[in-house]
Amino acid sequence: WVGSARDGAVRLIDQTLLPVEFSRIDCRDVETVWEAIKMLRVRGAPAIGIAAAYGAVLGARGQGLGSVDAVVSSLRAAAAHLRTSRPTAVNLFWALDRMQRTAEAEATTAPGPEVLLDHLLDEARAIEQEDRAMCRAIGRFGAELLEPGHGILTHCNAGGLATSDYGTALAVIFSAVEQGKAVHVYADETRPLLQGARLTAWELQRRGIPVTLICDNMAPQVMKEGKIQAVVVGADRIAANGDTANKIGTYGVALAAKAHDIPFYVAAPSSTFDLSLPDGSSIPIEQRDPREITHGFGRQTAPEGVEVYNPAFDVTPSRMITAIITERGVIRPVTADAVADLIGT
Amino acid sequence: WVGSARDGAVRLIDQTLLPVEFSRIDCRDVETVWEAIKMLRVRGAPAIGIAAAYGAVLGARGQGLGSVDAVVSSLRAAAAHLRTSRPTAVNLFWALDRMQRTAEAEATTAPGPEVLLDHLLDEARAIEQEDRAMCRAIGRFGAELLEPGHGILTHCNAGGLATSDYGTALAVIFSAVEQGKAVHVYADETRPLLQGARLTAWELQRRGIPVTLICDNMAPQVMKEGKIQAVVVGADRIAANGDTANKIGTYGVALAAKAHDIPFYVAAPSSTFDLSLPDGSSIPIEQRDPREITHGFGRQTAPEGVEVYNPAFDVTPSRMITAIITERGVIRPVTADAVADLIGT
Repeated sequence: WVGSARDGAVRLIDQTLLPVEFSRIDCRDVETVWEAIKMLRVRGAPAIGIAAAYGAVLGARGQGLGSVDAVVSSLRAAAAHLRTSRPTAVNLFWALDRMQRTAEAEATTAPGPEVLLDHLLDEARAIEQEDRAMCRAIGRFGAELLEPGHGILTHCNAGGLATSDYGTALAVIFSAVEQGKAVHVYADETRPLLQGARLTAWELQRRGIPVTLICDNMAPQVMKEGKIQAVVVGADRIAANGDTANKIGTYGVALAAKAHDIPFYVAAPSSTFDLSLPDGSSIPIEQRDPREITHGFGRQTAPEGVEVYNPAFDVTPSRMITAIITERGVIRPVTADAVADLIGT
Repeated sequence: WVGSARDGAVRLIDQTLLPVEFSRIDCRDVETVWEAIKMLRVRGAPAIGIAAAYGAVLGARGQGLGSVDAVVSSLRAAAAHLRTSRPTAVNLFWALDRMQRTAEAEATTAPGPEVLLDHLLDEARAIEQEDRAMCRAIGRFGAELLEPGHGILTHCNAGGLATSDYGTALAVIFSAVEQGKAVHVYADETRPLLQGARLTAWELQRRGIPVTLICDNMAPQVMKEGKIQAVVVGADRIAANGDTANKIGTYGVALAAKAHDIPFYVAAPSSTFDLSLPDGSSIPIEQRDPREITHGFGRQTAPEGVEVYNPAFDVTPSRMITAIITERGVIRPVTADAVADLIGT
């Protein structure tokens, strides 16, 4: 956020332009935030939640600051709209619920609309700050699981770009390196949108951590060659039993890790859990535009009119997950009881 | 081959331009054939063998037709050069060995260099004709393994474009459809060079067979959804115990098929077997240019200078292969003894 609550803006890195171009966008209205989430200019479950929280602040001033009620009803409308941007990452709903609860709770006590708006901005900032602390805590807990010399495979991007600061899966790696554990990262490019190639490789390279880029379909071979000692990925939604929705391809990585006896870790904040869902079968899976596959990078790579299936996520069953690393500690083994113990309070 | 032995040429479809452009190249010298194989203008193990055989004919006339010895020594030199084009597909070496044996055997009896050259062209044509018959036989044997309503996953392209005619893996599908078995094909796009998206989807679409294009990392999810009842892939080299080298990503597909109890079939001619290798660990794996991954779509998709690992093939262990479909019959279960029985004679 830059500027005051009254006329500030949400500043985002436009991740669709990385790694070739580093460019920021200032979003001054809800629609621009909605578009940024939809088009993956901002992406990664925690970062979507933060962007949406700030988007709700932008929305809250949508009808002007005439009255407290106008602010609350504008925020409600903005939240309802932002909820439609992407269906899978639960952090989006979590952050918007929290903003709405704050608005409703403060509506009766706020001395005026301007103060309410300031408080809403404070709440969005709190979400961002908590995310920062969360990243560090996940990093600390997760780093314990890695050893010097480990080869680590990651899929998609669960790094600084996916959070406010330090990442979830990549936080584990960053923390391990800070502790002096030299590791080598293998980054799946992550089709169709190549978040691994464009974002993860870029973040690791900037921090001087050795990284080798591979195509998604090479991960099993790299494991077979003995180059991988651990897999660490993020998550978009985790059900009560530990089943985890994450970027499409994660499930295949988990299958390959299992076949090679390689531990498979999920790193995600507690806000990623959706305890209302008993298991992964009820997690909604976003279907995206076929052109992401057929015209991925400005060039047609498939015949005209071909049918395409393009799910953005898949679900990895909890039995294939060695441990889930959260800011509250590590869930291991991953069972409904262990999830309830750490998260359900 | 178009024209006479003396001044004809090898005519190839430039597969790097598909599916957007259908364009043929006439190769009039060994270097053009070498480049076409190296750059994957012609690809697929059987097609590489056929192109190399014709390339050897082009090479045989390289020093002119002054003497039989000149023809034989030119062919030898051409074969030696063509062998360096790609290391994994054994059909390349098999076809060149066969051309060289023919040249050497006929050198003593040929009445003159022109007749020898004609015989060499006949031999290359025989390789192509046998390939045609092989495709049809593989199709017939393989179609027995499919049932109406099956969803079939294939990886890379083992279709008409990879052979003289009808394909290996796709021959199985084409034959099944000709027998009235309606099937639905899921085609992995096959990074980095997208042979599945560009070639397999195109071939199936042209023949009116329902096909759905997916990214490689979506195959495990599609299997989990119950959409796949069989996997059929081609092969680039098969060791004596049945371990199979094929396009990178095949091993991951096999792991996922195993996890979902889906039969995994390899379709390949007997010329793909290399009985001199006891198992897959001794199959040489070609490493290709990092730019295939970082600049694959005509646009840079990874940070400058990032380290890349780009093996073109992987090896699927025989224990994960339900059956190998050859033009001589089906090897099932896949064991060294069963391979020796069918192929080692």
